[in-house]
Amino acid sequence: MENKKIVKRSVDFAKWYTSIISEANLIEYGLVKGTIIFKPYSWLIWTNIQDILNSYFKNMGIENCSMPLFIPYSDFTKEAKHIKGFAPELFKISELCGKKLEDPYVIRPTSEIMFCHYFSNNIHSYNDLPLILNQWSNVFRVEKNTRPFLRTSEFFWQEQHGIFSNEEDALSFTKKMIDLYKKFMEEYLCIPVLMGKKTEYERFAGADETFTIEAIMQDGQALQCGTSHYLGQNFSKNFNIKFQNKDNKFEYGFQNSAGVSTRLIGAIIMSHSDDNGLVLPPKIAPIQVKINSLFADKCIEVKNLCEELSNKLSKKFNVKIDDTNKSIGFKLSEGEVSGIPIQINIGPKDLENNSITLFYRQNREKEILNIKDVDLNFIEKKLELISKELYKKAKENLDKRIFEVSNLEDFNKHISLGNVVLAFWSGTEKDEKKLKETTGASSRCISDETKSGTCFFTGKKTNLKVFFARAY
Amino acid sequence: MENKKIVKRSVDFAKWYTSIISEANLIEYGLVKGTIIFKPYSWLIWTNIQDILNSYFKNMGIENCSMPLFIPYSDFTKEAKHIKGFAPELFKISELCGKKLEDPYVIRPTSEIMFCHYFSNNIHSYNDLPLILNQWSNVFRVEKNTRPFLRTSEFFWQEQHGIFSNEEDALSFTKKMIDLYKKFMEEYLCIPVLMGKKTEYERFAGADETFTIEAIMQDGQALQCGTSHYLGQNFSKNFNIKFQNKDNKFEYGFQNSAGVSTRLIGAIIMSHSDDNGLVLPPKIAPIQVKINSLFADKCIEVKNLCEELSNKLSKKFNVKIDDTNKSIGFKLSEGEVSGIPIQINIGPKDLENNSITLFYRQNREKEILNIKDVDLNFIEKKLELISKELYKKAKENLDKRIFEVSNLEDFNKHISLGNVVLAFWSGTEKDEKKLKETTGASSRCISDETKSGTCFFTGKKTNLKVFFARAY
Repeated sequence: MENKKIVKRSVDFAKWYTSIISEANLIEYGLVKGTIIFKPYSWLIWTNIQDILNSYFKNMGIENCSMPLFIPYSDFTKEAKHIKGFAPELFKISELCGKKLEDPYVIRPTSEIMFCHYFSNNIHSYNDLPLILNQWSNVFRVEKNTRPFLRTSEFFWQEQHGIFSNEEDALSFTKKMIDLYKKFMEEYLCIPVLMGKKTEYERFAGADETFTIEAIMQDGQALQCGTSHYLGQNFSKNFNIKFQNKDNKFEYGFQNSAGVSTRLIGAIIMSHSDDNGLVLPPKIAPIQVKINSLFADKCIEVKNLCEELSNKLSKKFNVKIDDTNKSIGFKLSEGEVSGIPIQINIGPKDLENNSITLFYRQNREKEILNIKDVDLNFIEKKLELISKELYKKAKENLDKRIFEVSNLEDFNKHISLGNVVLAFWSGTEKDEKKLKETTGASSRCISDETKSGTCFFTGKKTNLKVFFARAY
Repeated sequence: MENKKIVKRSVDFAKWYTSIISEANLIEYGLVKGTIIFKPYSWLIWTNIQDILNSYFKNMGIENCSMPLFIPYSDFTKEAKHIKGFAPELFKISELCGKKLEDPYVIRPTSEIMFCHYFSNNIHSYNDLPLILNQWSNVFRVEKNTRPFLRTSEFFWQEQHGIFSNEEDALSFTKKMIDLYKKFMEEYLCIPVLMGKKTEYERFAGADETFTIEAIMQDGQALQCGTSHYLGQNFSKNFNIKFQNKDNKFEYGFQNSAGVSTRLIGAIIMSHSDDNGLVLPPKIAPIQVKINSLFADKCIEVKNLCEELSNKLSKKFNVKIDDTNKSIGFKLSEGEVSGIPIQINIGPKDLENNSITLFYRQNREKEILNIKDVDLNFIEKKLELISKELYKKAKENLDKRIFEVSNLEDFNKHISLGNVVLAFWSGTEKDEKKLKETTGASSRCISDETKSGTCFFTGKKTNLKVFFARAY
């Protein structure tokens, strides 16, 4: 059944995106411009993401804590590049109870400053290191053009902050975090990514090195999905975070920070969904199986069978029975728009044949099976298969969009076709800014290829190869 | 072993409280006055509380969502009593990027306004009701005198907001929430409470009725631990939240809101802890059993036994092995200050006798047991017993402090002795204000006794009996 409220991707991708969000009951707008309300369905996706990442964090020795939202402006200015990068985006409280504050409170856009404050109080000796913390929090940035999940004034994320006794450990942990994010994207969200370092121009304000994972949406635009920063001693020197090493000498600590945000929900939508609604990866779907019962109020056998099946499958999966009076077509359509991986219809007729009909969201196919064959094991394997199919489809979209170019003409051609361009690059920060302004494309990450060649923009020899794309 | 950094309760209860917080590694102060950092240990207590309440919420049909932090000031003023109550405590953003905002953004002190906005968009017919939501969030109130967990500029809570088609359902759910909080306090935090309605003077700004649970700390002061408000149609009328009833007529919805906060951590500390440190109720303790291994680096049998025991107990409990080189006395003392319910010492000597020594935090007793007797079942029963003992001790403190009085002299005497007073009351809001200013005591809740008598303050006949105490 076609949902006419959903705009077709081929007609207007941006409008398709917002129509999916509205039809699948994900968000509503707040009262202040650029803020959104996470409805229960999208909040469950986010808390599922939290639960999965938390279990990995625990195994990696990362401890959760919570830092205050307010940071004095004067502390925020201590790391020069950091404040330069964030200054235009800061929400501030400039007066309190009618009196002007001499030192306004910054509403955190990120919490490096607070973690530095914490580290400076808690790090004394090499025995205290590494200290690896994380917080799940709301963060705030003034944004002119906002879009739900992708760019909003308030968003939610986890920010991991670690401090180490040497560069090697800090750098290795920085990479471990971006590897975790890549694995999480692929295995749980079924989204392939490009992974690599950012160019200097695109680096986090205050970092020596930024690693990123970039996913390519169905329209060919890139979405930065997670970053992990090696901060070196930039912050520890400015915040005087010293520890006594094994030789009893004082040294500045080496830091990292890393994070993923509610933006991932945007990545899920634009990677997998179609013109019929949301398509959710099984592992983060709030409802994995919906059982649509037909005439359950009139037929006790149907009611019993639905409950029996639900009890069986609930041991491992999130199952919902829809026993409302709505028509079976309406129930199916609701489940489809909501991206529920598997729906099962059960009605009096099915009972006669001992058969039930299953509907798979990702390919919109249906399958009629004997009731006794639909057990935990079957559903588990089917969901696993669905995950693989989703990943495969997204990988095909990524692969078909990557083009290597060696001149600006081809660069422009592929960018305007909505492709990702891989090219030799030796430009300066200024060149990169110019390229972005003239083509709309930005460098997404540096490829790990090590061949050398000629930069398509400057004509200089280089061994740096970079992925470019238009980005959200 | 005595921890000299912990102030004795009998010497200075307030200093004892802050010394416990510092020695048990619960918090650190933020950079902005009145803000605190939740260190991993206290954050784990809070997330344990969250997990338990979430499982109850799920069974009660309460769905989690997330509302924006920023609320336009103009919307905040729509419910007259609500803004009157909160106006002095509001943090506001009054300018953005150097420009004065015509309508400042309020940093939420509570989210009735946002939920009303949501309800007005999502409630159309009686079929949409009840709609019962909750969010876990940070909230902000300007406070002059702050104390960790008890009163801070930023704190964390859950706020449940529901809308119903009639007064009866809304009121019944309001009571259901306060009953849940009472049960949670007693069963999980081992803290008995007084439960009842608030007087008009102490009611939530905008509510028709506020129900409260009040715990009595070891110093006799009351701590409001949770509230549930029946909002009637006060908000729905001001925010035009209407639904079509079964007779196709439009009616305003009936609302409730309820919440508990990180204040509960303060309640735990001041209910159970002693001069040796924190004492944690087993069900929310981040570590329930700590195994202190002695010479594990030199004795492989000790190491193996510790791991074996840990693996066994970890199936159901949070277990930590302390295999550092610290002395056994130091390890025990650390566990004691941190309030870990059970510690188990294992060293080479114990192995010879097949015996291990257990230390119980709540009564500081030790017990030598045969290794094979310390299994899941034993620990489960022991922790259950510890919970009961903690509750019993706190209940004794509550019971011995309640005194019925019939005149102001006795009222003053018992309040200055740090007791809770139960008395007939017929005073006005003005009388209550005066009583608070002159005695330091405030009404905590109305008793559910229905006898009649003479008000100790006004001399008038009344059938209202009220609990009074000094309060945090």
